[in-house]
Amino acid sequence: MTVDTRFYASLGALTLETAAALTGSELAGDPKAEITGIAAADRAQKGEIAFLEGDAAHAALSARLTVLVVSEAARARVPDGVSFLVSRQPRYAHGQISRALYQPRHLQTQEPAQISASAHIHSEAIIGPGVVIGAGAAIGEGTVVRPNSVIGPGVQIGRHCSIGASVSLYCALVGDHVTLLSGARIGETGFGVTPGPQGLEDAPHYGRVILQDHVTVGANSCIDRGVFGDTIVGERTKIDNLCQIAHNVVLGRSVIVAAFGGISGSVKVGDGSMLGGRVGIADHVTLGEGVSLAASAGLFRDVGPGETWGGTPAKPIRQWMREVAWLNKQSNPKKRD
Amino acid sequence: MTVDTRFYASLGALTLETAAALTGSELAGDPKAEITGIAAADRAQKGEIAFLEGDAAHAALSARLTVLVVSEAARARVPDGVSFLVSRQPRYAHGQISRALYQPRHLQTQEPAQISASAHIHSEAIIGPGVVIGAGAAIGEGTVVRPNSVIGPGVQIGRHCSIGASVSLYCALVGDHVTLLSGARIGETGFGVTPGPQGLEDAPHYGRVILQDHVTVGANSCIDRGVFGDTIVGERTKIDNLCQIAHNVVLGRSVIVAAFGGISGSVKVGDGSMLGGRVGIADHVTLGEGVSLAASAGLFRDVGPGETWGGTPAKPIRQWMREVAWLNKQSNPKKRD
Amino acid sequence: MTVDTRFYASLGALTLETAAALTGSELAGDPKAEITGIAAADRAQKGEIAFLEGDAAHAALSARLTVLVVSEAARARVPDGVSFLVSRQPRYAHGQISRALYQPRHLQTQEPAQISASAHIHSEAIIGPGVVIGAGAAIGEGTVVRPNSVIGPGVQIGRHCSIGASVSLYCALVGDHVTLLSGARIGETGFGVTPGPQGLEDAPHYGRVILQDHVTVGANSCIDRGVFGDTIVGERTKIDNLCQIAHNVVLGRSVIVAAFGGISGSVKVGDGSMLGGRVGIADHVTLGEGVSLAASAGLFRDVGPGETWGGTPAKPIRQWMREVAWLNKQSNPKKRD
Repeated sequence: MTVDTRFYASLGALTLETAAALTGSELAGDPKAEITGIAAADRAQKGEIAFLEGDAAHAALSARLTVLVVSEAARARVPDGVSFLVSRQPRYAHGQISRALYQPRHLQTQEPAQISASAHIHSEAIIGPGVVIGAGAAIGEGTVVRPNSVIGPGVQIGRHCSIGASVSLYCALVGDHVTLLSGARIGETGFGVTPGPQGLEDAPHYGRVILQDHVTVGANSCIDRGVFGDTIVGERTKIDNLCQIAHNVVLGRSVIVAAFGGISGSVKVGDGSMLGGRVGIADHVTLGEGVSLAASAGLFRDVGPGETWGGTPAKPIRQWMREVAWLNKQSNPKKRD
Repeated sequence: MTVDTRFYASLGALTLETAAALTGSELAGDPKAEITGIAAADRAQKGEIAFLEGDAAHAALSARLTVLVVSEAARARVPDGVSFLVSRQPRYAHGQISRALYQPRHLQTQEPAQISASAHIHSEAIIGPGVVIGAGAAIGEGTVVRPNSVIGPGVQIGRHCSIGASVSLYCALVGDHVTLLSGARIGETGFGVTPGPQGLEDAPHYGRVILQDHVTVGANSCIDRGVFGDTIVGERTKIDNLCQIAHNVVLGRSVIVAAFGGISGSVKVGDGSMLGGRVGIADHVTLGEGVSLAASAGLFRDVGPGETWGGTPAKPIRQWMREVAWLNKQSNPKKRD
Repeated sequence: MTVDTRFYASLGALTLETAAALTGSELAGDPKAEITGIAAADRAQKGEIAFLEGDAAHAALSARLTVLVVSEAARARVPDGVSFLVSRQPRYAHGQISRALYQPRHLQTQEPAQISASAHIHSEAIIGPGVVIGAGAAIGEGTVVRPNSVIGPGVQIGRHCSIGASVSLYCALVGDHVTLLSGARIGETGFGVTPGPQGLEDAPHYGRVILQDHVTVGANSCIDRGVFGDTIVGERTKIDNLCQIAHNVVLGRSVIVAAFGGISGSVKVGDGSMLGGRVGIADHVTLGEGVSLAASAGLFRDVGPGETWGGTPAKPIRQWMREVAWLNKQSNPKKRD
């Protein structure tokens, strides 16, 4: 993947032998093989290190892979000509190498200025008191930023946006006419719990959040940035208060997400879908275009275009309603037939 | 409705022909008819424009209506003597006209001062570092505002209140002895997704939030302001962390809302009701006095005074418990009778 | 309990007769008996006042009790030699006495400085613009605090922590390598609604939040401080965005809490437990080590070590899955056997 250097400072390339020492891994292949970036295994380009966990029997591998971290069990999956490390915890080792390659700019030495001298702020933008704007950030014409919001280094905000009070934005690209209500949290690290040698660790995230034109995000809602790649919210998608959009989610255009909507990692939601209040969707689920989910639905499976589902675990709405009615009747001695 | 000019600056009246040009609507009646305000159709006074959608067959209409925006199908519902516009998207057109009549003061050119010179702050109030206070706001005796909170223009806060850190308040009237814990979001725009000519749009909101004496709002909870009219929280009502109270909700006195409570638009909750954790209530539902909802209930219907309901969809608690027990027994071959 | 005077200023001792006058209670025993602190009835030491509600038939009492507030019905439960007050609302009266003994330092007269001169900030810590740090707070080596966060008086933060933007911390002790994402609310007053003479009142809280090493707390999540005693999050426990951890909860080590997790007051969760998204747990429930709760589970009962439960009300996962499958089959005339 191309790591966006507006958000992540490059710390320079590593050799595979340096990475082996850093992670305590066994080295196989060329010790001088160069690690210049990071990626998922199915998308890695030359020099971009990826990882394989378990036996990785079903893992798709990019033809351009040159360096890998694998488990002992996945050693047989390494293609010829690829140099690699063997680790007990490949995902954790990959995270260690990632941290040696890149550092999020917002965790680097902070400049003392409240508004960085290198930020680009349009003369027709309105910036409230207490707003903090990082190096290289940009804010377009007619955009209003209410007080005490924080705009991280490199964040790009388009024209005629409305940013509420005490909002935070990191590692984000924001289109035009976007509305973020107060307390929205855009671009935090996603929830990626990974086993490490001492116990649970947080996986680092090197992606971005992309909010297309006319997106609205409600008060105190959260949209996490991607691990590799981006979390994307399509044009005119409207998200209510207190929603959670996890890393690498892709919401299509004109999607409606009511309050307490919880969309887990890597979910895809088709254009024009409508999610009622308190809907939860398990990770990696895909919804077609125009799907409706009833309030309180807990969805664990893919749903085809135009379908309406409800209940927990969610099922087609007619089936859910039939179950609700049948249970009510059967359990009631006066009503039972 | 009387739009509160402490929160919304009046931009002056419009004629119906100006509004027709602005919204691309067909004009019927007097082109010079004056639009001086906005309202819902059942409450509009002279000069206050309202809208009718669909065929509006069941819409209640104020006897004092003088100007309307209607759909083609609702044309027949317009009373004699009322001048009107015909639009494909009456709600959206009404929003356009509203924006031409009023502008929220917190989105107008921001004054550079952190604490406005025109704010009225009692000498016995304690204002933390980083607090931002807008023009015309007032803070009463003995009230404490913790650091980095934002109090919008015109917001009135009474005596002996406790406002947490990083709270935001807009378009709000707050009584005495009110407690807002850190990160509470009071008075944001509600979630009103409206079709417009280019796709989904946010409906503008011109109401307020009213928090009566001794109300408590938990950390990171959200209370949206009304579209027309107000969102009201009655005396001594206690709201836990991470709750969502939508536009135009009316909570009575001494209501208890536990964490993750989600109250949709225009819901009414009677005095002394108790909502368990993670309760959701669909829009326009009415609860009588002293209603109890069990934790996790998802309510889609009105509930009479003193009743206790549970489950999703919620039903009287005995029925829910009978269903739970019956299902358990029947599905278990060892227990079935 | 030992009230931590870094967070709560002691206002001096009271005599029982002063407390009787303050609370309008009847006095029994020694009017000069000294009240020097507060505690729960089962843990009170000499001079620490506790309370008993109802008939308190099952209340455990510390052998070291010297002063109590009780209801009329609980009068018979008072041990010989203990001086006491009789009140219609013992919990409320106890809160009144507590407020006369201690005041949270963050509600006292605020010093004008953004960063208190008495705060201890390591030279290798990075403090962003707009951060507010109270008197006596300490921040360790290598810790980064992003902009506009608020660190209350006396809060202790260890080394190599990462504190996001607009976070607030009060009455908290934070270990090393702790990560708090933006908008997290640590140490607010818990939700303790108590009847008082005029109606519902908030119970004051005099405990702390303790976050052990390597804890992670997601964006806009809330962890309330204890009433008496502490809310504790064990080493390497990982909490996602928008979670609610109530007063006096004890989470063990390496617990995983996915988004919208809601843990009610005084719940105990064993080491290595995994709570799926949107899990709710009722107050005072205890989970053994290594418990798993499926996403959306609503738990009202204790669960033994190593068990997996799901559904609402939650039950062992196999039973829940059997019910789901059976209901689906029975309600569908085509599938029924």
